[in-house]
Amino acid sequence: MKNVIVAQSGGPTAVINASLAGVVDTSIKQGLKVFGALHGIEGVLKNDLIDLTKKFSNPKMVDLLTKTPSSYLGSCRYKLANDFADSDYEKIIETFQKNKIGYFFYIGGNDSMDTVSKLSKYVERKNLDIKIAGIPKTIDNDLAATDHTPGYGSAAKYIALSITEVFHDISVYSKPSVMIFEIMGRHAGWLTAAAALAKSNGKQICDLIYLPEVTFSKKKVIQDIEKKLKTSSKVVIAVSEGVKLEDGTFLAASNETDNFGHVKLSGAGNSLKSIVEQNLKVKVRNVEFSLLQRASAHIASETDMLEAFNGGKKGVELAISGKNGFIVCMERTKQYQIEYVAKEVDKIANLEKTFPDSWINKDKNNVTKEAIKYMSPLIKGEVKHNFIDGLIEFLDISHLK
Amino acid sequence: MKNVIVAQSGGPTAVINASLAGVVDTSIKQGLKVFGALHGIEGVLKNDLIDLTKKFSNPKMVDLLTKTPSSYLGSCRYKLANDFADSDYEKIIETFQKNKIGYFFYIGGNDSMDTVSKLSKYVERKNLDIKIAGIPKTIDNDLAATDHTPGYGSAAKYIALSITEVFHDISVYSKPSVMIFEIMGRHAGWLTAAAALAKSNGKQICDLIYLPEVTFSKKKVIQDIEKKLKTSSKVVIAVSEGVKLEDGTFLAASNETDNFGHVKLSGAGNSLKSIVEQNLKVKVRNVEFSLLQRASAHIASETDMLEAFNGGKKGVELAISGKNGFIVCMERTKQYQIEYVAKEVDKIANLEKTFPDSWINKDKNNVTKEAIKYMSPLIKGEVKHNFIDGLIEFLDISHLK
Repeated sequence: MKNVIVAQSGGPTAVINASLAGVVDTSIKQGLKVFGALHGIEGVLKNDLIDLTKKFSNPKMVDLLTKTPSSYLGSCRYKLANDFADSDYEKIIETFQKNKIGYFFYIGGNDSMDTVSKLSKYVERKNLDIKIAGIPKTIDNDLAATDHTPGYGSAAKYIALSITEVFHDISVYSKPSVMIFEIMGRHAGWLTAAAALAKSNGKQICDLIYLPEVTFSKKKVIQDIEKKLKTSSKVVIAVSEGVKLEDGTFLAASNETDNFGHVKLSGAGNSLKSIVEQNLKVKVRNVEFSLLQRASAHIASETDMLEAFNGGKKGVELAISGKNGFIVCMERTKQYQIEYVAKEVDKIANLEKTFPDSWINKDKNNVTKEAIKYMSPLIKGEVKHNFIDGLIEFLDISHLK
Repeated sequence: MKNVIVAQSGGPTAVINASLAGVVDTSIKQGLKVFGALHGIEGVLKNDLIDLTKKFSNPKMVDLLTKTPSSYLGSCRYKLANDFADSDYEKIIETFQKNKIGYFFYIGGNDSMDTVSKLSKYVERKNLDIKIAGIPKTIDNDLAATDHTPGYGSAAKYIALSITEVFHDISVYSKPSVMIFEIMGRHAGWLTAAAALAKSNGKQICDLIYLPEVTFSKKKVIQDIEKKLKTSSKVVIAVSEGVKLEDGTFLAASNETDNFGHVKLSGAGNSLKSIVEQNLKVKVRNVEFSLLQRASAHIASETDMLEAFNGGKKGVELAISGKNGFIVCMERTKQYQIEYVAKEVDKIANLEKTFPDSWINKDKNNVTKEAIKYMSPLIKGEVKHNFIDGLIEFLDISHLK
């Protein structure tokens, strides 16, 4: 009997452990032994594994894992070399063979799917009977070929709800004010678009939504705000951390880059705040959702959590049936329902699904009804947590050192 | 029959409308007509009132009001003159007489209790049969003579839970990092102290807690962090927005002041982040809870919400029994339970209850078990919201222009 390794990579989400729970629970029910590699592919490289089989044979622990935010197995941002002669590949195979691994599941976003793509080709080239599969997660929702990604719905729900609550807060003073929410999304505006779900009295709260897919013009934005201030004392703005100016630079660029060479961003909201203060005599506040938007399990979308679990489950089923080099994608059926389908990782990895131009309004400062229709079902349902003395019971993560 | 005016003032909380619901519901049940003054005492000055009697005779609307965050009636930051000859006092009495007002309830924090104090003396001096009472609210918990203030428990719960979730997030990477949470509290450290409630695997998550009651020494803080980094790869810090340096200036002072002359603060977390980055080679992140910590009704403490409602109720009962110039205070009985008692506003207004020195640890960088024992019961219980399509039903606030 072959064993399983599962690992998690990239930025965590509120439901990335639900995907893990789906993989672990399904593998155990298939009679397989499951190892978790700590800190993504780095754990595989170092043979740094923990046996999950016993602990998660207990359905209570599977439930707790499903509801615990962030990556139970830790994460990494490690890129495999393009050259298969690189020693990393041998090290990985060594770990696989030492532990009699037949299946490797990698839960992650765009960058992690690059690892799945390379590794699945490598094992084929080496004629190894190991199935490599990608289980998608990312709050960014920027993965190609899937209707949406697990993690997106929960972050979208947190954002819509928090904007609604803060809108109640800023509404108490009568003097005009501008409220800015800075939302994650380096190149794709999906999560920022979710600000459109926030409603009060049936009306959309966000007056202006600026996505990275649209060039950010300071002049135009000031005009947009001035126009709104004529009819309303409160102007609510959602801005993506990744909006770019006419010259191609980020509104809030920094000099740092991460291991994948992406520029680190911070402060698009603060930059916009300064611009408004310099141009208009109005009180401006800025809320940066920061890590809260991807960690907030307490208000996770039940739809999202179930889909994450089922995606993990489907990945195991497909790998056991013999598939290699695939990603579990979701397809939306007519009356909202999700089908899980395997797609060739090669056709998806390293592609970025940006927000569709046709779902951005004519003024380029909001999203259309079609976009809202797409997002709405993803935030439905609430997760039933086990509250103890006012706090939520999450799994212990003291194994992550 | 005399009528009621109720108003809300100061910074909103997640449960300030629960206090309002307590006042409105109890008044209606006593057969009284209830007006809400829009934007606090400014609404009384301008006779800008809305009749709440009909709408909130419906128990469903009372329930919805109880669960809607922020101030349904709007807010203000308006200070009455010390001199009773000021024309404001006459204007207020004019509104009272025009609307046959016998009772005025002001829901607010320290500054609002100043208004209650002055107004209650003024009506006594003028021999007017109008009862003036203060219903406390503030996330700061800095009101003297009450065990705690409504609003504090919900903000404390939000902070404890959010820190727990973000701790799961930052734990996924193996390299050392410092995580800073900036928490509201200009002069009193109660809310920052609530960071001590965040736990993982039974252990307190926050390694270091810096309150405004303790002088902030940059040198000492760097030493504290260095020491923690020797035994742990993650150092979690809660810092109050109001911490002051040895020279008495705020760590994050700005040049602006509000209407009460308080210096506006922003960025203690960012300042601390810069200090750490300049002194230690370690990754540092900063989350500023900003308005989220006082608006987050979705994770409000049920204990807090019930206490807020009952405080409003008790205020009405005491005023009807003939009391004037009081604040509804809470006293804790042995096995956690709350008694609502009237205390003379004069002995409370303009006093600030800072965090007790005896509840700060010897190293001046955390709080004691006694402090945790005090805070723990305040965050118990979850509010049952009505979720519609993944979002929470709140009351419409379109009357706030």
